[in-house]
Formats: sequence, structure tokens, C-alpha cells
Amino acid sequence: MLTLNETHDANLTSWVASANNANNKSSDFPIQNLPFAIFRRKGSKESFRAGVAIGDQILDMAAAYQTTVFSEDRSTGKVRKALKACCDETLNRFMGLGFEHWSALRRALFHALRTGADEESELSGCLVPMADVEYRLPCQIGDYTDFYTSIYHATSVGSLFRPDNPLLPNYKWVPIGYHGRASSIEVSGHSFRRPCGQTKAPDADQPSLGPCKRLDYELEMGIFIGAGNASGEAIKLDQADQHVFGLCLFNDWSARDIQAWEYQPLGPFLAKNFASTVSPWIITLEALVPYFTTFERPVDDPQPLPYLDSEKNRQQGSIDIQLSAHLLTEQMSQKGEAPAQLSQSSFRHSYWTINQMVAHHTVNGCNLQPGDLLGSGTQSGPKPEEAGSLLELSNGGKKPLSLPNGENRTFLEDGDTVIFKGYCEKQGHARIGFGNVQATILPALTDSGE
Amino acid sequence: MLTLNETHDANLTSWVASANNANNKSSDFPIQNLPFAIFRRKGSKESFRAGVAIGDQILDMAAAYQTTVFSEDRSTGKVRKALKACCDETLNRFMGLGFEHWSALRRALFHALRTGADEESELSGCLVPMADVEYRLPCQIGDYTDFYTSIYHATSVGSLFRPDNPLLPNYKWVPIGYHGRASSIEVSGHSFRRPCGQTKAPDADQPSLGPCKRLDYELEMGIFIGAGNASGEAIKLDQADQHVFGLCLFNDWSARDIQAWEYQPLGPFLAKNFASTVSPWIITLEALVPYFTTFERPVDDPQPLPYLDSEKNRQQGSIDIQLSAHLLTEQMSQKGEAPAQLSQSSFRHSYWTINQMVAHHTVNGCNLQPGDLLGSGTQSGPKPEEAGSLLELSNGGKKPLSLPNGENRTFLEDGDTVIFKGYCEKQGHARIGFGNVQATILPALTDSGE
Repeated sequence: MLTLNETHDANLTSWVASANNANNKSSDFPIQNLPFAIFRRKGSKESFRAGVAIGDQILDMAAAYQTTVFSEDRSTGKVRKALKACCDETLNRFMGLGFEHWSALRRALFHALRTGADEESELSGCLVPMADVEYRLPCQIGDYTDFYTSIYHATSVGSLFRPDNPLLPNYKWVPIGYHGRASSIEVSGHSFRRPCGQTKAPDADQPSLGPCKRLDYELEMGIFIGAGNASGEAIKLDQADQHVFGLCLFNDWSARDIQAWEYQPLGPFLAKNFASTVSPWIITLEALVPYFTTFERPVDDPQPLPYLDSEKNRQQGSIDIQLSAHLLTEQMSQKGEAPAQLSQSSFRHSYWTINQMVAHHTVNGCNLQPGDLLGSGTQSGPKPEEAGSLLELSNGGKKPLSLPNGENRTFLEDGDTVIFKGYCEKQGHARIGFGNVQATILPALTDSGE
Repeated sequence: MLTLNETHDANLTSWVASANNANNKSSDFPIQNLPFAIFRRKGSKESFRAGVAIGDQILDMAAAYQTTVFSEDRSTGKVRKALKACCDETLNRFMGLGFEHWSALRRALFHALRTGADEESELSGCLVPMADVEYRLPCQIGDYTDFYTSIYHATSVGSLFRPDNPLLPNYKWVPIGYHGRASSIEVSGHSFRRPCGQTKAPDADQPSLGPCKRLDYELEMGIFIGAGNASGEAIKLDQADQHVFGLCLFNDWSARDIQAWEYQPLGPFLAKNFASTVSPWIITLEALVPYFTTFERPVDDPQPLPYLDSEKNRQQGSIDIQLSAHLLTEQMSQKGEAPAQLSQSSFRHSYWTINQMVAHHTVNGCNLQPGDLLGSGTQSGPKPEEAGSLLELSNGGKKPLSLPNGENRTFLEDGDTVIFKGYCEKQGHARIGFGNVQATILPALTDSGE
């Protein structure tokens, strides 16, 4: 059961000092968080394996498995099995073990990392400084589905693509989603080339091929599936959270000019499948329990159909995660300036909850598998400055944004780095941070440049 | 280079008698075909491995690798490397080796299976009767993309979904495609449950959840990618065929009532992702060379943009593959009656060629990987009886089809089995058959039936 327990107690600290409050600044990764990534020492030939973030350190799961701390005498079978799966080069097997194993390992790690724990002497040798590592994708992503759960995003983008018909009649009934490309999803830090593609200006006789001129980011949450379902068997709404391993930050890069020309009638394709970027750290759903909150649907809107509606979903279906998008231009980077914040929003504004996404995705019998990724869709909030894409912030490219250093942007330029951050914070609870996700745009590869 | 060579010589026969013409009936799998599947003996605990069809037999690649026929003394490094990859439980590694390896193995197998070949004595022990085996998916499908390449299908379906606007302005410029679900693709013979989903009747106040009432098949070709491309690097049109491993028959099952309600604005989702079915045998592109044919675009239509146009594509971009769809109802099955043919068409009618699909898919830098699957989209031909779906054949469900045994169908009923067949045939060339692909509809799993 996903409920508050001892691992959420905000008063407890870790013997890893950087995990605790210091100078009034909270770490993204206190002992109450314990997120997972796949890492190795930068530039080494080590095998990739799972790590758990604690302060500015990573607890190396493969090293921890070799200690006596999690030996047969001192650990349950569930903990040992979970930890063993964390020695793999991907999290898929661990994800597939299901909630009871994840939760057992969380409790075991929590106890071992607490201030005063006997385990400190052995486990301190299993820490690797975060600054010294490189990450890769936390799992093999079999299928990636992108949802469209912000009604504010759907309405404002709809009004740009279809001025006469912004929000379609199905939106308030169907958690709209579509399949995306898994092969081009990379972990934070992987640069990618500006895509080329077919576009057609409204006044042009015919389309032409060239580098995208309206390259955009999309501020999303990524949701990793843990245990899957058998083909033909739906996951029920109130059981859906047992199938969700955890959340990350997710940038679903989008080429708006390619999208406008190609997307009818079957949806976005080349406008999206050139690159998507996930943060290295997956925050488990259990770590987020203190931030579960009521799912508020406007009173005049229709209630969801029964398969998408329950008391539990209404009471604690949403999660209050603060999200922000930042831009570091090449010029800022050269001058050592800080990134400019473009917008901030909260995942709480989502019109559909994670459990609704999972229940809807499987209501037809579609089988989800460990490591599958669901994108939440761009998480724009109700206010204009809470928009999660440049398309919205620049009103379709018509109103350039002025950056603090005097530069302007309607869409992204070569050399731009986009950075997302995310965290949960609330009185009486530990801050749960997501770290960040970032990537830089490289120039398009054109024939002459080959 | 994909050109006619000795392995296409129609006069040559195999020492496997069933591969040769007999009683004026040609096998789907003569020595000029040599398609690949993944198989094991039915009900056994054997490892799955690759096999090559020859008549009604399968040459077991793992067994062949153990013979002296393909030893270091008697084979090239390419052949041995290719054959070794065929001992894997999927074809992915073999697919990733690229055209030169596939072609080297094809020539080696062709020589070893020819009438009079010395290799008969050793290889005859490596044959397994097709009747005794079970198949599984030929490879791990990382990503599945479905195209929409029949202009006849696009126009007639468009007129049902959008009567005022059947063929959209981008159709003749963009090889329209979208991403589909990889996890629910199964090999021929896997039954699946009728999906449930949200639908909304035009006159209903609100949608409701229930079993799909308009379940349909889609007669498609499946195209398996062999060697992939690096992220950011497009595959050029005239090199695209070097990246295509081969073709199969493909049924992209579709729930039309779910599709109509959910598909705007981001395309089909639950209407398609509950099940798709591939034939067990992949026919290599090299086996199809005799059937490459001119790509005929109506003279009044715009020429493709340069990245989608070349002399080679115009001269031999299309492939003349005969396709047919058949229905075996539960009643026919019980009475031992033959399936009823619903329609027949040819892949030659495709408005976009395979090379155009690959070049377009990667023009933005999207990375394809060995084992990725492209669907061609429903291959409806120009005549009404050549339509590749019941949606078209029944004019959107308004005109029921009369079956020879007196039954009627607008859409598929529980217990229906849909069978696709495919083959190439031409004077002076060997018949290249695809075998078939089939699956049966099981009743929906509803709450009361659990």
C-alpha cells in the first residue's frame, strides 16, 4: 500500500551529511527520497549498475550487494532479490519485481543510511560522488506513450493549430495519448542535432525540406511502469499505482513547423521522434506519497466514466510537483551567466491522474511492460506564465520572449541548452527533488555539412 | 547490390522435393525464396532459433551451424558469422549484420540446397517438418511505425471519418506515418480478446465503455529493418534498401468505433494497440528482386520532393506482391468449410515505396534499429473489391457482406479467424510465397466474465 510510513519521517537524517539540511538549503536527495539511476564512474570501463542518490553521493547497489549489510542473515529475501536485480545494467528486472520488493528495499536502505546506523562503516565504502559519474538510460524502454493531460496546454495549442476548434469534444472524457518513439529517448546530457523535415508555409505553393525553424521543448513528467499486465487484462484504476515504479523529468522536444504540416490525420511523427530526454533519477512513487493531493476537476465538467473514477482517485490522485524550465543560451554560457527561467508550473494541474492514464491505457487489454515510459504531456498551468513550451509562451512565435541578458527567443536556437528542474516541498515534510534534465541543440546536419 | 543473380534462376531446383513444382502447384518456399523465421519443435523445451523455409521443411540454422558444410574450411567468414547469429533466439543480431552478410548466407544456402549438391547428405539431417514446429516473433521489435501508403485506403477511410475532407493536402507530399505499439505484436496463431473501450454514438449525450462493436482487420505488409542508422544521420533514398531486411504479412487489427472517438487530435491509440499480428516468415528483400517494378505516380500528381525522388525509385521502387484476405467464421470452421475470400489487392498500388518510407522516417535524424517494424498501412487497391478492410468493404458498416455460406458480416464477430495470404508470381520467375498470417477473435473480457 502506498501510504505514509516511517520512511517519510521528515525529522530523520542520514550519516551522509550532504543529504541533510545545511545552510537553509535542502538537498534534492535527502534520506526520504532514495531515487534510482543507472551509472558508472565517468570515463571508466565499469559495468553500468543501479545507484541510489543520497545527498551528493550515490550508493552503489552492486557494491552494497557485496557487503554483509544485506546478507542472508541480516536481510529478508525480498530485499536481497531486489538488491540483486539492481546489479543489472538496466532497472527493468528490478522494476518488474513489483511494489513489495521496491518498498522492502526502500525501508532497508532507509534504515541503513540513517544517522547512527551501524551500517555506516560498511556502506560508506559503497558511496561514489555524484560529480564523478556518468549516467545512461535507467532502463530499456520497450514502448513510450505520450499523454496530453494538461487542459491548459491542449486548449492553447489547439487554438494555434485549430483556431475554430481548440479543445475537442473528447478531451474531457478520454485521457488522450499516442505512441511515441522509444529509440531516440536519451538520458540528460545527450546533445542532439536540430532535425530537418518537410514544412509548408501557409502562403507557399508546395512544401520544402530544410532544418526545423520552430524547435521547442515540452515540460513533462515521465512515468516509468514497473510490473506490467498480461495482454487482454486491464489494470483497474485503484490498483494502477501498484504498477507505477516512479517518475522523472521529461523533455519531449518538438519541431512545431514539421508538426503543423504532418500531423493530420494520424498525429505527430517526425515532429517528435528525433529526440526526447529523461532525467537520470527516477523518484519512486512511494517517495512522493506526502505530496499526493486531491484531484480537482472543475465542477461544471463531466465526471469521468466509472472506470476512470474512484474515491481514492479523487482524494489523492494528483501529485503536487513543482516544475520549471530554464534556458542557457550559448552567449550566457560563454559569459558564465546563470540560465534564465522560462516558466514554472505544477504537475498538480494535470487534468488526468497517473492512475487514470494507466487504467485507460490498459482498458482495451494493451499490455504494459516493466520499463515502459508514459509522458504526461506538456504540464502547462492555468496562467500564461505557467506554459510548458515556447509555442505557448511566444503565442505561436508571434511574441518573442526577452531574456534577462538582452537576447530574444521565439523558438530554440543552435547552442541553446534547456534545463528542467522539479521538486516537492511542503511544511512538515522532507523536500523531494528530481535533480534536473538538460540537453543542448546542435546545428542541423545538412548535405553540405556532411 | 540488390540485383538479379544466380539465386533467382527459376530453372534450378532443390533436393528437398517439396520445394519444387509438383502437380502444377508451386510451393510458397522454393529454393529461390529462402525466408527466415524463429521456431522450435512444437511443445518441446528446445531453444528457439532461426530456420529457413524450403518446401514443407525448415532448415534448422543452429543444426546446420554444427555440420561441416559451413565449417571454416568450406565457408567464408561472412557466412559463418551470419549463420552463428542465426543460432540466437531472435533474428536481431543477424538483421544488424547488414546486406552483405544476409546475401552471403543466401548464396551459401542456395548452393547447399540445390539438386545434386554434395551437402545433401549432411544437411538432410537438419530438416524439421514445418508441420511439427511452433513459431514466435522473429525478432524483438524495438519500435513499430505504421504508414498509410495506400491512397485508395486513405481516400475511402477519409471520406468516412471526414466526409467533407477525405484526402488531406499533405498526403501527396508526406509519407504519412505514426508510431504504434510494439508490445502487443504477436506472431500468427495468437488469438486475442475483443478490446473494450470508450465509444460515443453520434446521437448519444456522452460516451460509454464496452466491448468494441466495429472490430476490423487491416491488410498490410510488414517491413523489418536490418542495419539501422545512427541518431542524427538520415538514410538516403537510394541506400534505403540496404537497410531493409525483409517483408512479412501484417494484420493491424483496428477498433473502428474506439478510433472514431479517440483519434483527434493525436491519432489512433487504443483503437490499434491491443493486438497486431505478423506472419512467421520474413521474405528477404533480395528474394523479391524479380518483382521490383516501376513506381507509377499519376501524371497529374506532384512529383515527390528531391529527398523522396530518384531514377532508381521510379524504375524499381514498387514490389508486385499479391495480397488477399480471407475469413473463417466459427460456423465455417465447425462445418469444415473453406475460408471465404474477402478481398485481394497488390502492394504495387502503394503510393509510397519502401525506400521512401525509410528515407522519410530518418530525414529528421530518427534512428532505426535492427528488428524495427514498419507497417505499410492498409493496402487497398483502386477497385472497391480490392479494399483491405471491412470498414471499406462494408462502406462504414452500412452494407453487410454476404458470405458464401449465407452468413453476413459488417465487422468481425467473436470466433472469426482472419487469414492473409501473399505471393509473387510472374512468367519466367519462381513463385515467392509469404505463407500466411492468421488469428482468431476471442470474446471480450468484461467485469462479469472475470
